[in-house]
Amino acid sequence: MAGLTAARELERTGVGVTVLEARQRPGGRILNHVFDDGVTVEVGGQWVGPTQNHVLGLIDELGLETFPSYDHGDYIVSIEGHVKRFSGDTFGLPPHVLLEAAVAQKRLERMAASVPLDQPWTAAKAPAWDGQTFESWLRGNLRLERTRQFFRLVTTAIFSAEASQLSLLHFLFYCRSGGMLDRLLGTAGGAQERRVVGGTQQVADALATDLRTMVRYDEPVRSISQGSAGCEVRTDAKTYDADGVVVAIPQHLIGAVHFDPPLPPRRRQLIQSVPMGAVIKCIARYDRPFWREEDLAGFAASLDHPVSLVFDNSPPDAACGLLLGFIEGGHARRASLLTTEARRELVVGCFIDLIGPRATDVVDYVDLDWAAEPWTGGCYGGHLGPGVWTQLGPELRRPFERVSWAGTETATEWNGYIDGAVASGLRAAHEQLSEPPGVQPSDP
Amino acid sequence: MAGLTAARELERTGVGVTVLEARQRPGGRILNHVFDDGVTVEVGGQWVGPTQNHVLGLIDELGLETFPSYDHGDYIVSIEGHVKRFSGDTFGLPPHVLLEAAVAQKRLERMAASVPLDQPWTAAKAPAWDGQTFESWLRGNLRLERTRQFFRLVTTAIFSAEASQLSLLHFLFYCRSGGMLDRLLGTAGGAQERRVVGGTQQVADALATDLRTMVRYDEPVRSISQGSAGCEVRTDAKTYDADGVVVAIPQHLIGAVHFDPPLPPRRRQLIQSVPMGAVIKCIARYDRPFWREEDLAGFAASLDHPVSLVFDNSPPDAACGLLLGFIEGGHARRASLLTTEARRELVVGCFIDLIGPRATDVVDYVDLDWAAEPWTGGCYGGHLGPGVWTQLGPELRRPFERVSWAGTETATEWNGYIDGAVASGLRAAHEQLSEPPGVQPSDP
Repeated sequence: MAGLTAARELERTGVGVTVLEARQRPGGRILNHVFDDGVTVEVGGQWVGPTQNHVLGLIDELGLETFPSYDHGDYIVSIEGHVKRFSGDTFGLPPHVLLEAAVAQKRLERMAASVPLDQPWTAAKAPAWDGQTFESWLRGNLRLERTRQFFRLVTTAIFSAEASQLSLLHFLFYCRSGGMLDRLLGTAGGAQERRVVGGTQQVADALATDLRTMVRYDEPVRSISQGSAGCEVRTDAKTYDADGVVVAIPQHLIGAVHFDPPLPPRRRQLIQSVPMGAVIKCIARYDRPFWREEDLAGFAASLDHPVSLVFDNSPPDAACGLLLGFIEGGHARRASLLTTEARRELVVGCFIDLIGPRATDVVDYVDLDWAAEPWTGGCYGGHLGPGVWTQLGPELRRPFERVSWAGTETATEWNGYIDGAVASGLRAAHEQLSEPPGVQPSDP
Repeated sequence: MAGLTAARELERTGVGVTVLEARQRPGGRILNHVFDDGVTVEVGGQWVGPTQNHVLGLIDELGLETFPSYDHGDYIVSIEGHVKRFSGDTFGLPPHVLLEAAVAQKRLERMAASVPLDQPWTAAKAPAWDGQTFESWLRGNLRLERTRQFFRLVTTAIFSAEASQLSLLHFLFYCRSGGMLDRLLGTAGGAQERRVVGGTQQVADALATDLRTMVRYDEPVRSISQGSAGCEVRTDAKTYDADGVVVAIPQHLIGAVHFDPPLPPRRRQLIQSVPMGAVIKCIARYDRPFWREEDLAGFAASLDHPVSLVFDNSPPDAACGLLLGFIEGGHARRASLLTTEARRELVVGCFIDLIGPRATDVVDYVDLDWAAEPWTGGCYGGHLGPGVWTQLGPELRRPFERVSWAGTETATEWNGYIDGAVASGLRAAHEQLSEPPGVQPSDP
């Protein structure tokens, strides 16, 4: 999405563009699955929501439509082995846990508000916050283990990484980047509010089709050379000349591209320090969304199951029922060892526990372990562990001579989301347009 | 060193071996610099010490000699802007700081003793220890800021990474791996006890020369395919057939090799999570080791300077004086932005401050920023941030069908040291010999 958006923006200004795509399809972390009868569901990024104006604008421009995620009826929560219904924002938590969680959320959001999105390392308390994990903060600042568990679930839900892997500073940056916790976690009014008719991959497909030039698929870039005359970009098939290059891939994959001259040392170290999260997105198909008949929204959150989050992901016409389950963080790392068959059994077992016995009647199943995808290496996005923002943060967007860096990990707003990817593509395109190539030194 | 050792061991058993080396020289993180007049000094790994039996045995076998690092006279320490001499193990610290440091060291080593070197994630307290940074432990368990500063210096000295970047569990594992803190930090009786006559690169050179087959230089491996019939290893120059492969490179560089079938998802995620430390090794040459005349050992430790550690690195015959300075961790990340000229000025300034005004009379200077080396990406070694050992540790040495993993990061004893590299090469060689290729599944 970042690369295609950059290409689109550059074409608009009359710049000739070639898009080199490693995969045989556009969209990166966005991917539709089409069932035998044509019903479509996303096995990659899917939701859009308010304030994500870059992607919402793009969807509109491309003539695509969105529809609200299904969100009627009660929710389900599983804590300490007990599965129960709840409604509203209580998560079925007892009042004293809710109170501690609310106070903690207020504190965290006050802290987050002090983190400059374009330079998180300049926050007044950056050294202390970047010196600890979010897990340490939870242990040091929350009294109730159940409140900690709740925040751990929130963390894997947002990052698909454990609280132990995240710098507290990164957690705070990300909160602010997405408009704070309620917006990140919410359906109506939040990041999960809307879906794209026909599946979100439509956006990438339409973007690719809309370009004047053809996207060159199955052409992973092997090397980028640059000098005063321009750049030379080599794939297995061909060598391309260019005035500049926008690199729009996950940070860790930058290490697989040979650069001549070599990447600056700090950049080379940054790309070693932005690992991807771990998530397996699992979808079970039913004849109809039976939970709606029981006044259930199809949403469940569990502290007890490897599938920690469940959503109703049925098509807009409810022609069938689709339950979406996320296996995230440490759970995903374990479930990654299972065969698809064993994973199906595991996931359906969770659906039965959480949504009810009628979840047994699965008619189809699909899942995707994003860590197994060579051109991604994990989802939802890359995260920064302790000590990285404060030591190497300035390298994230710093152009390397004629090379600009895009991808949702480089976004200031909605970092990690489709919207951040789109925004990063626009930013990189304008960088290419405004800065005379070869003028800005990479190491001032 | 890991790859050459594996090759040597396999050859010994009559197995035909080809060594594919990305660089134009052997040795990896071991590298000599030869001054115009033939005086040799290491700009890479150099020291060996007691209990490092793998590398000591190898040095002996290869007919090379070692000599003791110079360690006579007083030491220098700089704290809170004051430079002072000290002798013994006091580091010039006041008694109450020394006491707190000694108690902390005892506590840390008791904790470290409970970490199984081959499976750190099984330590009883692994989840809690892997959930926090070593920096958090320092803040939570030490009362005096000066004691914390001392441990931060110890951390960058050992890891060339900041305490904020390290999982407490990784710190403990590494302590035990090298025989606890005194051994890791010590000269006489410790990891810095001895040097190799002619420079440590002699060991790698001799190993390479000793092989029956020629090492193929300038041949970075681009892809490794494997199947029931064997492996196919491709470089830009040629394709090689093999029954098995030992990969002996830093973890993050594994991502630059294309694997077919692709790497298992967990392995793919591990290699995103073992970033290299940051260190610039700086050597200033003087007519003679003038500090010895002032009864100084040439050793300095500073909490105030970008060069945090200084050693006498003169040749065995003291034909000239060589001061070795390390810029480590965050300091290295900043100094990485400087030109070599500016860095020389910075380093010599530190030497003048710490060793005395006679350090002005530099006759030659050389440094190496290991983060700038494309085939290493940082030194001394890779470290694990919070949450990695407990989630992905089992993947570190798990063979991938016919592929075994070597390199000092995979060692149980002396992990991060030359000795660990040698041991890992032996282990990988025996893995190749004992396990029938293609039999062990990578994902049980």
